[in-house]
Amino acid sequence: MRLDTDPYLERYAARVRGMSASEIRALFAVASRPEVVSFAGGMPDTSALDMDAVEAVVAAVIREDGATALQYGGGQGRAQLRELLVEVMHHEGVPGHTDDLVVTVGGQQALELIAKCFVDPGDIVLAEGPTYVGGLGALASHQADVRHVPMDADGMQVDLLEDVLDELEAEGRRPTFVYTIPNHQNPAGVSLSVDRRHRLAELAETRDLLLVEDNPYGLLDFDGKTFPSLRSLVPDRVIYVGTVSKTFAPGVRTGWIAAPRPIRDKLILLREAGDLCPSNLTQMIVERWLATQPWREQIERFQAVYRTKAHTMLRALAHEMPAGISWTVPTGAFYVWLTVPRGIDTSDLLAKAINHRVAYVPGRGFYADGAGGEQARLCFSYPEVERIEEGVVRLGELLHEELALVHAVFGDDAPQVRPRATGRATGLGG
Amino acid sequence: MRLDTDPYLERYAARVRGMSASEIRALFAVASRPEVVSFAGGMPDTSALDMDAVEAVVAAVIREDGATALQYGGGQGRAQLRELLVEVMHHEGVPGHTDDLVVTVGGQQALELIAKCFVDPGDIVLAEGPTYVGGLGALASHQADVRHVPMDADGMQVDLLEDVLDELEAEGRRPTFVYTIPNHQNPAGVSLSVDRRHRLAELAETRDLLLVEDNPYGLLDFDGKTFPSLRSLVPDRVIYVGTVSKTFAPGVRTGWIAAPRPIRDKLILLREAGDLCPSNLTQMIVERWLATQPWREQIERFQAVYRTKAHTMLRALAHEMPAGISWTVPTGAFYVWLTVPRGIDTSDLLAKAINHRVAYVPGRGFYADGAGGEQARLCFSYPEVERIEEGVVRLGELLHEELALVHAVFGDDAPQVRPRATGRATGLGG
Repeated sequence: MRLDTDPYLERYAARVRGMSASEIRALFAVASRPEVVSFAGGMPDTSALDMDAVEAVVAAVIREDGATALQYGGGQGRAQLRELLVEVMHHEGVPGHTDDLVVTVGGQQALELIAKCFVDPGDIVLAEGPTYVGGLGALASHQADVRHVPMDADGMQVDLLEDVLDELEAEGRRPTFVYTIPNHQNPAGVSLSVDRRHRLAELAETRDLLLVEDNPYGLLDFDGKTFPSLRSLVPDRVIYVGTVSKTFAPGVRTGWIAAPRPIRDKLILLREAGDLCPSNLTQMIVERWLATQPWREQIERFQAVYRTKAHTMLRALAHEMPAGISWTVPTGAFYVWLTVPRGIDTSDLLAKAINHRVAYVPGRGFYADGAGGEQARLCFSYPEVERIEEGVVRLGELLHEELALVHAVFGDDAPQVRPRATGRATGLGG
Repeated sequence: MRLDTDPYLERYAARVRGMSASEIRALFAVASRPEVVSFAGGMPDTSALDMDAVEAVVAAVIREDGATALQYGGGQGRAQLRELLVEVMHHEGVPGHTDDLVVTVGGQQALELIAKCFVDPGDIVLAEGPTYVGGLGALASHQADVRHVPMDADGMQVDLLEDVLDELEAEGRRPTFVYTIPNHQNPAGVSLSVDRRHRLAELAETRDLLLVEDNPYGLLDFDGKTFPSLRSLVPDRVIYVGTVSKTFAPGVRTGWIAAPRPIRDKLILLREAGDLCPSNLTQMIVERWLATQPWREQIERFQAVYRTKAHTMLRALAHEMPAGISWTVPTGAFYVWLTVPRGIDTSDLLAKAINHRVAYVPGRGFYADGAGGEQARLCFSYPEVERIEEGVVRLGELLHEELALVHAVFGDDAPQVRPRATGRATGLGG
C-alpha cells in the first residue's frame, strides 16, 4: 500500500516564503491526491522490505520477551542494540564501540540533542549550503545563527570553510560546530571527496573544531562504495549521527549518536529530560532484524532499487528539461538538486507545479538565509519507477512554459541562463 | 520474565546529593541484583497484559499495512490514533477533540516540548512539592526556576499557591505556568480534592494562569472513580498531558498533548524539530490495541493488580514501621510517600537500604530546591505481591536500627518524632 499523504511536504512548505497556513493547507490537500507525482518527501521505499520477515520479527519480540519490550528502558538505549549498531557502522568502515553510542528517536532527535547540548541563542553553526531541512529546524529551535559554506560536485568547499573561519576569527568569534552530511548529501545529492575529508579533518585539529557528521545515506551508494568517515579520521573531534531509517525503516524511529564519552554522558542526561528512553519495543525489533535477518542483502536490495530510480530520473531529466536547467548527478541515496535560470522562483512555482500534478521541495527550505530561490530538490526514492518519468515530463512541460513566459516578458533582456550541468557543476547555487 | 535492571533508579539516584558517578554505578550494580526488592522504579506491571493479544496486534499491523507502519508519518501524529485517544480521555470524563491532540513520545516528551515552548532561562514555574522527577528534569534542562507549592493529603494547597502568586506579584513577576499532577500524584500518592480543583480553575481565570495538567494515573483509581479534570473546568487555560504508558504499556512510548489551537501549532513545529514524527509502527499498534481489544477491561485489571499491591504495602507498613514514620495512603496508581523523623536522611540511607536488599527513591529527587531529605518514594506497582511484604520488612528493620542509632547518639535530645500519619497528614514534608 502507498501512503495517501506526503508528511514531508508539509514541513518543507512551512519554510516556503510568504505562504499563509491556510494556503499551505490548501496546497497539501491537492498535493496529497494520488494523481500528483511527489518528488517532495525524502521517504525510503519501505515496500522493498520483506514484510513477511518483518512480521515474524515483531511477533517473535512480543512472544519471546513481551514484558521487557513493553516496559521502560534505560536512557542510553539497550546494550544489545548498541552492539549491533556498531556492526552496522563497521559494515561501512566507521569505527565505534557499544559504550560510545546513545540510541535516539531517529537521526532527528540526535540533531536536536546535539543542538540543545551545545547551542546557546546566537551561537554560530557552520553548515553546507544547501543542507538538511531537519538539521536547520533543530538548530533554529535553539536559535543558532547558521552560516552556510558553499558546495560543489565534490561536497562542501573546504577552502571556503577556511575563509569563513578566518572571517569569524577576525570578528573574534568561533563556530560552535560544523554540521556536515558528507555522504550523498541531502539535498544536494553529492558526496565530500576523499581529499576534502582529509583537509576537513586536518582543519578540525588545527582550528580546534567540533564536527557533527550526519550519515543517513553512507550505505546507499549505488555501487556499494564507501568513503572514509570523518569519525575514522579525527574521532575525538566528531559527533557521529547514524540511523536505520534508510537501511531498515523510518517507522521504528531508531537512530544513534556516537560521541566522545564526556559528550555522550551529557547527551544521555538531555535525552532522559527529553523523552526518558527510546522504545524498548522498536529497539528490540531492530535488534532482532539485525541479529536474525540478512540485513546486508536488504541494503543491497535498497541500493539496487534506488539506482534504478535514480537512472530513470536522470534519463528523464536529460530528455525533458529545457536548456538552462542544470542538476546534480547522485551516485547514491535519494536526491537530485535542480537549478533553474534566474527569473524563475521555485517557491512561487510550487503551486503551479502541483496544478501540473508534480511536487518538489523549493530550494529555500534548505537554507537558513533565504537563498535557494532558483533551486529545487527532487527526491526519487519513493515514487514508483513508472511514475518518475511521468513526473519529470510534467515538470519539464511546466518549465518550458515558464521559460517562454520569462522570455515573453523580458525579451532579449531575459535573465542569462547558465549552461546545462553534466554532473560537474561548480556551484550548487544559493 | 522480569527486568534484570531498574532503569529508573539510575535517573533518580543521579539527583541524590553528593554521590559520585562511580559510587552511583556501584550502587546500581548491587541494586539491580535479583535479591534486592526495588520500590524505586515507577514501572507498570506489564506482565498483567494479555501477551497473546499484543502479539496478534503487532503482527496484524505489519501484515495489514506494513509499508505505512514502517514509513515516516506526520508531526502531529496519526488522526486515527488521535481519534481513539480522545475516546480514552472521554472514558475518564476529560473533554477533547481529535484536532486538539499532538501525539508525543510518552508524557515525558510532552513535558519537554511544553518547557521548550514556554520557558526561557530563569522563568518561574510553579509545581507541587514534591513533584515528578521527569518534569523537574525537563524544566531544569530549559533552566526554569521551579518554585514548589506544598501539598497535603488533598493535593496542592491552593491557598498557599495564592500566597506564592501574591509574593511573585509583589516582586513584579509572574509564573510561566503551574505544573500539576492532580490525580494520584507522583510521588505523593494523593489527589487534588474537588473543591481545590474548582478553586484552582477559578484562580487560573482571575490570575491569568496557564496550567499544565499532567495526567498519567487518572484511570488507575483503585475503585474506578474519576475526578473532574482541570481541562473540563477551564479548557482554554490548560495544556493537558496524557499517556498510554500506564493504561497500556510504556514500551510503545506513546503520550499526547491536548492544547488550545495556537499552542498546539507551536508544539507541532517544535516536535518536528525535535524528532520529526512519532513512530507510525507504535502508533498503529496502540490504534489496533484500542480499536480491537477490550482496553477498558484491561484498565480494570490494572486497577485490581495495583489495588492488591497497594493494600499489601500499606498493611506491611502498618506492621513493620517503627513509631515516628508516616506515609500517605494512596487511592490509586503506584506510590506511597514516606516521611522519616528528623535525624535520618533518606539520601544517606539509600546505600544501607540497598545493602539490606531494598531500594527506594530518596525524596530529594522530587524537589528542585534540595528539600525532601526526610522523605522517600516507595513504588509498589512493579514488584510481585509476595516480595512487597519482604521489602517492607527489610526497610522496617533498617529504620528500627537507624532510629536506635539516632537515639543512642542524641539520647534525650533525639529529634522530635512526628505522630504516625493516618492518611490525613497535613503536610507531605520538604
